[in-house]
Amino acid sequence: MSELLQDLQWRYATKKMDPTKAVSTENVDFILEAIRLSASSSGLQPYDVIVVTNPEIRAQIVPHAWNQQQISDGSHLLVFAAWDNYTAERINTMFDLVNEKRGFKNEGWENYRQMLLNTYPSRDPETNFQHAARQAYIGLGSALIAAAEMKVDSTPMEGFSPDKVDEILGLKERGLKSVVLLPLGYRADEGDWLVNLEKVRRPTDSFITQVS
Amino acid sequence: MSELLQDLQWRYATKKMDPTKAVSTENVDFILEAIRLSASSSGLQPYDVIVVTNPEIRAQIVPHAWNQQQISDGSHLLVFAAWDNYTAERINTMFDLVNEKRGFKNEGWENYRQMLLNTYPSRDPETNFQHAARQAYIGLGSALIAAAEMKVDSTPMEGFSPDKVDEILGLKERGLKSVVLLPLGYRADEGDWLVNLEKVRRPTDSFITQVS
Repeated sequence: MSELLQDLQWRYATKKMDPTKAVSTENVDFILEAIRLSASSSGLQPYDVIVVTNPEIRAQIVPHAWNQQQISDGSHLLVFAAWDNYTAERINTMFDLVNEKRGFKNEGWENYRQMLLNTYPSRDPETNFQHAARQAYIGLGSALIAAAEMKVDSTPMEGFSPDKVDEILGLKERGLKSVVLLPLGYRADEGDWLVNLEKVRRPTDSFITQVS
Repeated sequence: MSELLQDLQWRYATKKMDPTKAVSTENVDFILEAIRLSASSSGLQPYDVIVVTNPEIRAQIVPHAWNQQQISDGSHLLVFAAWDNYTAERINTMFDLVNEKRGFKNEGWENYRQMLLNTYPSRDPETNFQHAARQAYIGLGSALIAAAEMKVDSTPMEGFSPDKVDEILGLKERGLKSVVLLPLGYRADEGDWLVNLEKVRRPTDSFITQVS
């Protein structure tokens, strides 16, 4: 089996992390780089990643996330925080960056910018936020693979109060809304009810439909 | 640089595919397996993947997707179609499958099933659909990496009319709604305005915030 499929098989939503083991900065940077390089709609990358190592701040988050201890027991907490809206400023910042890096203006690209400027900012903010949140999940998909490749354990979490996490991290002022948490760490030797249970997925013939 | 980061750098949203080249079944199956093994909230895998090879059906979809020719020029079109709602039946099917595969009932797992049954089906369908759609994007993240590892080109597309695609593929009757398209194929030698342009991403210090 290929390494990628092995990594996907290996990973699981770790339920108990070892508080004495920390993920190296090198490995965390690798995971973050995989997220940063991930695809996103129109290349806007409409989310930020907050890396929380501060133990007090992680402890503040725990009670707002169903007391899931991996947030404190892991060494790093990644918070995927989507843009609360698409604004002209945000769209222009990204298109200007692309022009700057590529060293020229492409007419098709500029027309595309105008199309987005004419469309996104006038939509309701909730539609835009939902769209941005989906892009963060592409990054999450990359992060899970990158972590598994480094044999770093992780636990994707949606069970938390976004408003509370946003407040603790000061995200609202930055126009961001937390959408998914990802503690990183190493599985504990004991106390994880899930670690030895078989990974179950829908069978291929139920999950996949061929139209040929 | 690691192979994963190289793959993420290599891939791009291919604008022109070579209609004379087809992706092998082996490579498509590899990409589908990476999607199938991907994480999802509560392990529900609340989406299906439709693999369209039929040329007539792909041609029917093109006009409803801004005439993006990669849909026809590639050899395979993956359609990620999210559950339109979380129903008790869908939740029970997945929990029953897990019990069957693991060969026993776990009390915590059964309590978790009850919690989902008490929560999800009574929420409004749009909230449930949006949640399911996000999970499909984790699979999309895996698919993009799996394709790149095989040097298969792909183009994630949100610019299409979901209602029309759902109608063409008969998805509504199956309680599914298309959320993202992913044509697979090989880049053409000529005619792709994007292929030689630098990939631009937000700089690390803007994309990542450290809270230490």
